[in-house]
Amino acid sequence: MKPNVDYSLYLVTDRDLMSAPTMEETVAQAIAGGCTVVQLREKDMGGGAFLAEARAVLPITRAAGVPLIINDRVDVALAVGADGVHVGQSDLPAREVRRLIGPDMLLGVSCATVEEAMAAQADGADYLGVGAMFATDTKTDTRPVSTETLCAIRAAVDIPIVIIGGINPKTAPLFYGTGISGLAVVSAIVAQPDIAAAARQLKEMSKEL
Amino acid sequence: MKPNVDYSLYLVTDRDLMSAPTMEETVAQAIAGGCTVVQLREKDMGGGAFLAEARAVLPITRAAGVPLIINDRVDVALAVGADGVHVGQSDLPAREVRRLIGPDMLLGVSCATVEEAMAAQADGADYLGVGAMFATDTKTDTRPVSTETLCAIRAAVDIPIVIIGGINPKTAPLFYGTGISGLAVVSAIVAQPDIAAAARQLKEMSKEL
Repeated sequence: MKPNVDYSLYLVTDRDLMSAPTMEETVAQAIAGGCTVVQLREKDMGGGAFLAEARAVLPITRAAGVPLIINDRVDVALAVGADGVHVGQSDLPAREVRRLIGPDMLLGVSCATVEEAMAAQADGADYLGVGAMFATDTKTDTRPVSTETLCAIRAAVDIPIVIIGGINPKTAPLFYGTGISGLAVVSAIVAQPDIAAAARQLKEMSKEL
Repeated sequence: MKPNVDYSLYLVTDRDLMSAPTMEETVAQAIAGGCTVVQLREKDMGGGAFLAEARAVLPITRAAGVPLIINDRVDVALAVGADGVHVGQSDLPAREVRRLIGPDMLLGVSCATVEEAMAAQADGADYLGVGAMFATDTKTDTRPVSTETLCAIRAAVDIPIVIIGGINPKTAPLFYGTGISGLAVVSAIVAQPDIAAAARQLKEMSKEL
């Protein structure tokens, strides 16, 4: 049975940017500040280390009732018993991932166009990560998605949408009233000196979405 | 039901080194020359591209009755319906991989010590890749395994062993009579101007093991 997910403040981790000494501490502080979903993203880590990290973080998210999503590595997600998987357009196709994870795990897909969004929904996505909304240091290979495209995607699919890429307290208000379900945030939470306070501020802002 | 595998000439691919224009051609030529197992190894490829490559290669290996093994990415192996997975010591632990792939898919584990070999066998490995036997350009992070250690591993486990790392027509004779089941080869096959001929020569030599 799939949980009823609150996507309002969706944390995506980045160990190169995090201000806390460990991933566990980063995640714990972000949840204390109000993050409602945690996605572990590790692009340069072997499967063994990624699994070990996910196992260290899972008790923290479970205790808080926050879904733990694994980026890209479906095998790691299955091995740890995560709540879901998030894939980009160059990762395993959403349809294959849905087949591998079964009906009950969450599946998120990164999309930048209406076509990608409709395909992702048809292929079994539970939610979409739309972006990058702005050019960021975290993702340098992407062209920003316009607000117009975001609204077109919102109109084209039924599933929840979080926006990602340059989302911070300055940019978040631009998306009030666009019908999205949440803010997906990397550096505006993990790189801040006070992770919990940064999350708290964005959590407040997410109420205006 | 697990196939009765002939490990005698075990190809490990490397797209940066291959002399043929495509992976399909590389694999087809290697099989024409006598390779008995094919491991697709892609360390810098997204899951989507890796899956596409595996899907392109699978009909070639299937037609020849040669097992197709996927390096590291258990999710890609499951998605394509490969014959097995091969993991190193920093990838997902063998025990977790066995749990994910079930009893019937092949599981290979890279080992460099008796302890690693015994653990891999206990955790469900079907065969071991022992090495690197020599320093190579393909794997720069490893210290060579001595022949003494190889023989100690051979004595410590029951499952088939292939040796890897600097195996070529000059070095292969050093391992005649060591009780191993096959030669695992990267550049001495894929990087040669005539891939089939290179495989043919090594296949002949593997009869002396």
